[in-house]
Amino acid sequence: MDGVLIPPLNFSMAAPGIYRSGYPNSMNHAFMKKLQLKTILYLCPEDYSEANTAWCRAHNVQIVQCGILPNKEPFQFIPEDVVADALRVLLDCRNHPILMHCNSGKHRSGVVIGTLRKMQGWSLTSIFDEYRRFAGSKVRILDQQFIELFRIESVTYDKEYAPRWLR
Amino acid sequence: MDGVLIPPLNFSMAAPGIYRSGYPNSMNHAFMKKLQLKTILYLCPEDYSEANTAWCRAHNVQIVQCGILPNKEPFQFIPEDVVADALRVLLDCRNHPILMHCNSGKHRSGVVIGTLRKMQGWSLTSIFDEYRRFAGSKVRILDQQFIELFRIESVTYDKEYAPRWLR
Repeated sequence: MDGVLIPPLNFSMAAPGIYRSGYPNSMNHAFMKKLQLKTILYLCPEDYSEANTAWCRAHNVQIVQCGILPNKEPFQFIPEDVVADALRVLLDCRNHPILMHCNSGKHRSGVVIGTLRKMQGWSLTSIFDEYRRFAGSKVRILDQQFIELFRIESVTYDKEYAPRWLR
Repeated sequence: MDGVLIPPLNFSMAAPGIYRSGYPNSMNHAFMKKLQLKTILYLCPEDYSEANTAWCRAHNVQIVQCGILPNKEPFQFIPEDVVADALRVLLDCRNHPILMHCNSGKHRSGVVIGTLRKMQGWSLTSIFDEYRRFAGSKVRILDQQFIELFRIESVTYDKEYAPRWLR
């Protein structure tokens, strides 16, 4: 179908200026162009795909990488400081509109959005409900535990450039 | 917990200026205040709750009602013209920010957002994926069929006030 738009897997708008999704591929580029992105925040430690790197260069989109290894029992835990880094990038309006993504758009993205909701003052019930909406049957208790225990005081960000909805 | 914010069930941002959710109650009012809403679009035919009506009056939020009876086999079908009315309200920036809601935030809201995605040019696969994210185990085939067969040409709206992301 000519001209049909295909958002990346698990695409959604999280807040004004902030989008989340799974890993985009070239089939998603026409859709992404509509978002008029300024920034892509990439949450995996692996090198970014050549197709996306080239697309970003051609469309003047900066790529910021905060490489997070996902929670995996029993010994691999998401590092709190890298999540705080990711939040600092998300909460800077100069980077908006921004698309944050990991691989599936479920776990790492879900954790970062969960901690963002905590900073917004959402109840844990609401945060977990949103997390589950994207994780579906792949919910990870360790992710939810991370969100619950995350200390929002550890996030330093520039208040001057913070989105109005956070203030 | 004092000051904790509780979004309505199935709350989400659908696009710049447009929010969707289940039926808000008074526990959600503090959260809703943060959205600085101009309009609530209520998708059920029943009278609106007194608590929400009073809250809207106090916060200068206009209430628009497009009463839709949900799809129910074998003989009750969502009317195409009322969905077109709802889209006309959603696609008028003068009503933004707008919160659209039904009862559970699954079916009627899912159908209206699905038809909105069709107007945006999304693939049906992506539209149904989003529909399912909110409907969970309560997916209705008739809703998906409605979205597939919906004629976007039947929607008339004022181009001058349409959101930029639709143009």
